[in-house]
Amino acid sequence: MLEPPVRRLAEGPNLAALTTILKSGAAQTHMMWVSVSSDGSHLLINTEMNTQKARNIQREPRVTLMIWDHDNPYAFVEVRGRVVDTVKGPVARAHIDELSWKYTGRPYPDQAIQSDRVMFKIKAERQLNRGA
Amino acid sequence: MLEPPVRRLAEGPNLAALTTILKSGAAQTHMMWVSVSSDGSHLLINTEMNTQKARNIQREPRVTLMIWDHDNPYAFVEVRGRVVDTVKGPVARAHIDELSWKYTGRPYPDQAIQSDRVMFKIKAERQLNRGA
Repeated sequence: MLEPPVRRLAEGPNLAALTTILKSGAAQTHMMWVSVSSDGSHLLINTEMNTQKARNIQREPRVTLMIWDHDNPYAFVEVRGRVVDTVKGPVARAHIDELSWKYTGRPYPDQAIQSDRVMFKIKAERQLNRGA
Repeated sequence: MLEPPVRRLAEGPNLAALTTILKSGAAQTHMMWVSVSSDGSHLLINTEMNTQKARNIQREPRVTLMIWDHDNPYAFVEVRGRVVDTVKGPVARAHIDELSWKYTGRPYPDQAIQSDRVMFKIKAERQLNRGA
């Protein structure tokens, strides 16, 4: 299960730094939206299948998310975990809309989508609280 | 050399997500202050020697920094690079003061220091601009 500070930050409109591991073993880090699964057990992110991060995750499911408080970025959590489920199709499309509403107050524009959307479900294996 | 968007973001009071690689191959990500070397060639970060990230860097010098615009976090750069110099002593102590002035407007308090400060000099090997 997600610990309370992780859940609180991921439920709010707080951004996350998602790190995936490249084939070379080096890290790739991107700014991401994040949410919590409806049962509170997993973190959810959403991207497109034709991205480097999706390819990285398919080869190496271990990911790290740093999520910080929008109003105080020095209050953050670090979650090291593993992608345990890959969901495409209408569920992934609905999830990017849900994220877009949370972060921007608008649905996600169809014209921004270039390849299949994908939702990755992340099981937290280590949850570190840094002042959050 | 650092590309203009990287230099601009790292010179301003913009936070960075520093990722180092743990012995297991998983990523560790922390919120960090960052600056640019006086000749504009390298990124500089500062931590203490007794931290996990310092130990990670000593074993695996490849690091990734995501730096975003304080006023628009969707404008960010990703720098994949390598720690090419490790500087301790008075230079590292002066650098954390310089960072503290930039980010907080105050010198860094001595009582916050628990072990030797260390400044890591990072050579950028890949610089990716995401809207910055």
